[in-house]
Amino acid sequence: MSANESASAPNQRIGTGRLDGFSDGVIAIAITLLVLEIAVHPPGTPLEQFLHAWPSYAGYVVSFLTIGAAWLGHSDLTDRLTRSDPIFLRINLLFLLAVTFLPFPTRLVAEGLHERDAERVAVTVYGLTLLAIRVLLSALDGYARREHLYSAQTEGEELRAVQRKSLVAVICYVLVILLGLLLPRLAVALYFALAVYLVSPSRHAVARLRSQPSGPAKPPTRA
Amino acid sequence: MSANESASAPNQRIGTGRLDGFSDGVIAIAITLLVLEIAVHPPGTPLEQFLHAWPSYAGYVVSFLTIGAAWLGHSDLTDRLTRSDPIFLRINLLFLLAVTFLPFPTRLVAEGLHERDAERVAVTVYGLTLLAIRVLLSALDGYARREHLYSAQTEGEELRAVQRKSLVAVICYVLVILLGLLLPRLAVALYFALAVYLVSPSRHAVARLRSQPSGPAKPPTRA
Amino acid sequence: MSANESASAPNQRIGTGRLDGFSDGVIAIAITLLVLEIAVHPPGTPLEQFLHAWPSYAGYVVSFLTIGAAWLGHSDLTDRLTRSDPIFLRINLLFLLAVTFLPFPTRLVAEGLHERDAERVAVTVYGLTLLAIRVLLSALDGYARREHLYSAQTEGEELRAVQRKSLVAVICYVLVILLGLLLPRLAVALYFALAVYLVSPSRHAVARLRSQPSGPAKPPTRA
Amino acid sequence: MSANESASAPNQRIGTGRLDGFSDGVIAIAITLLVLEIAVHPPGTPLEQFLHAWPSYAGYVVSFLTIGAAWLGHSDLTDRLTRSDPIFLRINLLFLLAVTFLPFPTRLVAEGLHERDAERVAVTVYGLTLLAIRVLLSALDGYARREHLYSAQTEGEELRAVQRKSLVAVICYVLVILLGLLLPRLAVALYFALAVYLVSPSRHAVARLRSQPSGPAKPPTRA
Repeated sequence: MSANESASAPNQRIGTGRLDGFSDGVIAIAITLLVLEIAVHPPGTPLEQFLHAWPSYAGYVVSFLTIGAAWLGHSDLTDRLTRSDPIFLRINLLFLLAVTFLPFPTRLVAEGLHERDAERVAVTVYGLTLLAIRVLLSALDGYARREHLYSAQTEGEELRAVQRKSLVAVICYVLVILLGLLLPRLAVALYFALAVYLVSPSRHAVARLRSQPSGPAKPPTRA
Repeated sequence: MSANESASAPNQRIGTGRLDGFSDGVIAIAITLLVLEIAVHPPGTPLEQFLHAWPSYAGYVVSFLTIGAAWLGHSDLTDRLTRSDPIFLRINLLFLLAVTFLPFPTRLVAEGLHERDAERVAVTVYGLTLLAIRVLLSALDGYARREHLYSAQTEGEELRAVQRKSLVAVICYVLVILLGLLLPRLAVALYFALAVYLVSPSRHAVARLRSQPSGPAKPPTRA
Repeated sequence: MSANESASAPNQRIGTGRLDGFSDGVIAIAITLLVLEIAVHPPGTPLEQFLHAWPSYAGYVVSFLTIGAAWLGHSDLTDRLTRSDPIFLRINLLFLLAVTFLPFPTRLVAEGLHERDAERVAVTVYGLTLLAIRVLLSALDGYARREHLYSAQTEGEELRAVQRKSLVAVICYVLVILLGLLLPRLAVALYFALAVYLVSPSRHAVARLRSQPSGPAKPPTRA
Repeated sequence: MSANESASAPNQRIGTGRLDGFSDGVIAIAITLLVLEIAVHPPGTPLEQFLHAWPSYAGYVVSFLTIGAAWLGHSDLTDRLTRSDPIFLRINLLFLLAVTFLPFPTRLVAEGLHERDAERVAVTVYGLTLLAIRVLLSALDGYARREHLYSAQTEGEELRAVQRKSLVAVICYVLVILLGLLLPRLAVALYFALAVYLVSPSRHAVARLRSQPSGPAKPPTRA
């Protein structure tokens, strides 16, 4: 989005400023739209109605954390990019498609968790969307590595940790989707656990943080 | 949006940072609002209801890809700009008007595809909006070329390929709108095909990508 | 939003990057949310319903152009800023409050224009919001001039032209609000005319554009 | 969001550009979505209906000012950051969770203020959300100080004033939440007063503003 970005090599190597800005915008909107799906319905006293809407809150928190984790992963990934290319931009668009779709299954879950019959459909669609987000994020990472879009400084150890975590998440999502066909409510609880797992910082990041001398920081030098 | 942007020549030649940021924002929101138009209605079992809502999903995907393609085209176009001018900003505003309007005909299509009578109106309004987006994007491109707003480095061959593609799309849209008066569902399928055509990278871009030595990338130097 | 912005003098003179980004974001969202207020209602054939919703479209276009003009004015204004201050940020927040409120009276107009009785209330609230947007934009400009927040390069002649236009608009809004108590539909037509007047480039800008040698542009030099 | 941001030290010290952009985006959307919760309902003449919706307007203004104050506080805080870290990003995500949740209790207040019974629930949930926003903003500030994420230039006196103000606000919120169990409408009035208190500039900022020689400003030099 800076003047520099737009001036240098408009076509050959696509700058990442616009990609970052657009993706951040879409993810920020999707995460904020979730609140519109929360609703309180009769019957009952106001307090009962409020408490009775718990599937809304559960869906809201799980979706918020999942999109939050996706943003952390996506911004981590694009911060390592030195350039982008046309194919990368298209995979990114598919990733954003999955993220922006999430408010819809979140609403299905919020509405469906009171009816035995609707639960299974809602939770399965929800799980498939969560899985799609994670798989497409991994696809972005895989493509960027294959095409050497990352900067060379990227530390191999940490990168591998992130990829291991992603793989674990994908496998878990598949298992929980299958489990959800039988026990939809348990699946929602596990999706919450997975979101917390994904959003929590990696052990590497925390370990490095602890070992850092935490003296007063210097402003980043501008090379 | 950088300090540099706002400091240099505030009036004479309008910087493109704010234009980029605002346009990206509007397009990002329009593409994300589409999800609010998806809805599931009785009657039927939950699964039947979910499947019965297929026009919602069709409209969602077609509109998402169309706006996605418009963003790719728009960001490609504005990345080549070295400056903007007051007229360009107004054409851009009309382009954004068409983009932000799209969620409404998308909802019409989602609601109308089950009633023979409503289909024709919905699909025609939808097609006219898609056409308007494409025509206004071409108008932006035409104006920028006429007023020499582009940087000189822009490669002529690739630019001509993009313009040919745009012209093909406009002609196709006009034909499909006419066809849609008779066969609205076929028209939606063709709008999907057109969106995929527009979002797919040009042969030039892919060819150049293949020929690039894909060694580890160096960070862009800051001149 | 650049590293530079955040590093330099965090408190004394508030950088304008965050201000720009946040304001652009809010305006972009308000302009895009307008589409959610468009709705089609029975009775009638689908075509009749679609055509019967004309007040929705009228409100949509007038509000879009008014917010578009406000963005042009606001981005013109903040591009001339060299710094911001705490009071300026608060006036800006009030300006954004008026802009984000506009979708509500737009919906009132869309719903009210078929009922003689509701028209007057809707159109008056609408007019007062349009007036508030314009007055607060002028307040921002007035404050920035009084506190010398603008860069010195700003051309006096053009600035005065913009201020004259703003004053004309404020007077017109007050007159149309009064007229709207008797003839609400005429008032909406006049609000459209005012939006077109505000969004159209100033004669100065166009004249200077015409006199510019429109040779191939050079990229802006980075001092 | 600048090229510089993404190139320098992608992992060790997380740049604040993406954090700023994403947070600004989320806050901008949450503040704009508030308008969707305003609604006018029968019975009554159009004017009566419009006036009868006063809890909508009250909730809108209080929530807008509270989020506005949160943005001012957040942008003040992140402007002082020289770097970010994984934990800070997660606390920030929780802060955004509270901000994006606010439109829901705002709707509850708007709908509930006419029914004696619903008032208490709505106003309590509303107050708890306002409290959560303020507490998480303080947590961000506390963490940043503890981990020395701020630049060294930060003036101690002003910082302490901001922290005092935050502490006063947290205590007041707790008291008003308790009071709201008995007198919900009074609590809404006090939440308005608290929002005005939080959004108003600190005495320090105003004093320094007054003492500044307000000669024509020079553009910020680019070190």
